[in-house]
Amino acid sequence: MMARTSNKFNSRLSSVATEMEIVLAQILPEPAGPQSRIMEAMAYALLGGGKRLRPFLLIEAARMLGKETKGIWLAAAALECVHVYSLIHDDLPCMDDDDLRRGKPTVHKAYDEALAVLAGDALLSLAFEILTQNSIHSNADVRIKLIFELASSSGTHGMIGGQVIDIYANLSDQNETLITHLQALKTGALIHFSTTAGGRLAGAGEKDLQNLSTYANALGLAFQIRDDILDVEGDITVMGKRTNKDAGLGKATFVSIYGLEGAKEKAHKLGESAKHALEPYGDKSDILCAAVDFVLNRQK
Amino acid sequence: MMARTSNKFNSRLSSVATEMEIVLAQILPEPAGPQSRIMEAMAYALLGGGKRLRPFLLIEAARMLGKETKGIWLAAAALECVHVYSLIHDDLPCMDDDDLRRGKPTVHKAYDEALAVLAGDALLSLAFEILTQNSIHSNADVRIKLIFELASSSGTHGMIGGQVIDIYANLSDQNETLITHLQALKTGALIHFSTTAGGRLAGAGEKDLQNLSTYANALGLAFQIRDDILDVEGDITVMGKRTNKDAGLGKATFVSIYGLEGAKEKAHKLGESAKHALEPYGDKSDILCAAVDFVLNRQK
Repeated sequence: MMARTSNKFNSRLSSVATEMEIVLAQILPEPAGPQSRIMEAMAYALLGGGKRLRPFLLIEAARMLGKETKGIWLAAAALECVHVYSLIHDDLPCMDDDDLRRGKPTVHKAYDEALAVLAGDALLSLAFEILTQNSIHSNADVRIKLIFELASSSGTHGMIGGQVIDIYANLSDQNETLITHLQALKTGALIHFSTTAGGRLAGAGEKDLQNLSTYANALGLAFQIRDDILDVEGDITVMGKRTNKDAGLGKATFVSIYGLEGAKEKAHKLGESAKHALEPYGDKSDILCAAVDFVLNRQK
Repeated sequence: MMARTSNKFNSRLSSVATEMEIVLAQILPEPAGPQSRIMEAMAYALLGGGKRLRPFLLIEAARMLGKETKGIWLAAAALECVHVYSLIHDDLPCMDDDDLRRGKPTVHKAYDEALAVLAGDALLSLAFEILTQNSIHSNADVRIKLIFELASSSGTHGMIGGQVIDIYANLSDQNETLITHLQALKTGALIHFSTTAGGRLAGAGEKDLQNLSTYANALGLAFQIRDDILDVEGDITVMGKRTNKDAGLGKATFVSIYGLEGAKEKAHKLGESAKHALEPYGDKSDILCAAVDFVLNRQK
């Protein structure tokens, strides 16, 4: 049973990633004009890699509620643009200073810093441009709601806020409460958007949105705990990026707070909570529940 | 007559700037939480300076068409967020590497590079968040249209595209056509958005939008030519930023192409075209016509 779900899950994850690659290539502006270099850098960053976990969650949340439209694929593409923009900027020398991402040179290494800043900026603008399209959802109020939620979950009370805490919080202040809050913003907010946006596009009611929200909050935190575990245990050749960097910087992480086994236990419990939130959907929630196991067991 | 219009214009420009300052302070997130540093950096960049020319054009375009709502002030604030985000990123060491902006240290000097990147990112997200508000315009389709136009005029076929050409175009390629195209994207696209957004919010018809568009395109180019003239003739103590930097870099400018007098002549002709486009509005266009003279004669 476990193996069957897992096989089904892997095949779904891989098929969504394949399909997303096509959609992402379609939404990118064609390299044209004397500024074609920026379109090339955007394609370099956006295409050819990544698990596409956030788009997957958006699409599978909509599927769980029984609705799949062209709009969910476009919304998932917009979401991935925001995720990738944040990776490009986080990798900059003035932030994490990473040379490697998804197994290839980061954008500022492959191009230069100016183009990395601008390619990130352009992907953020593009995300909002995509969400205005009529084919996202015929009701403009729904599109407005998605734009609002994407903007706020990427802003100072979401992803950017989390990144700022991560960079500037006093290390001695990094207790469990602060780190949990930091990660809820830095990683959690966009994962939360993923599932609730999928729900909204599938016509979710308030109760559905609450369930998806509970699922996403638990999953997002479990995701980050797994990240911290991989930072210690991970293999750079599997990860495709630098490991041991947080511990190397003397930063507090979930592993430094809970210990390695404690962190695994905490992640497991969060996984159970995430699955529990989707019990009302019975078998229909199989894929999103398998996504929890995937997050808890991933090697990269 | 000329002096009277000019006095009236100066008083309007100054009163819009004063009012905008209040609105901008309102739309900024309160410095709160462990990430309060980012809200402070956003306020540092956004408040206390600038002519607020783009917001002014948006508001006066709406006024010319006889409609002033709370929504135009909010839309103007969103527009200014995008303008200021672009200044913060353009000032970064990896781009123009400027230490001074509006007479005070640039964001990466007052804070650091990471926070400058993130404050710019946050202002861009905030702009779109603001445009989703119901108080912008009660019709969601109008808000969607504004979001689309702001996103596209700031993207790879707008402001960012222009910046990329400015940074990477081969100097020997910088002929009149290329520089005109570059500036139409880098400066022109957002000025174009300013006037047409004001028009849209005031219920402009297609013909009005065409007139405002013609006005904005001529004004935007005249604005940039004046910038190039000031780069050569300007006084750093008046400008509040470094001068002679384009010529110093051996970059082609409108001055290097047309000569100083030729550039002034070209700007004057563009100014006349801009005013001509607003003839159908008679006296109602006085302020927007005076804005042309202001742009052509400004000393900073």
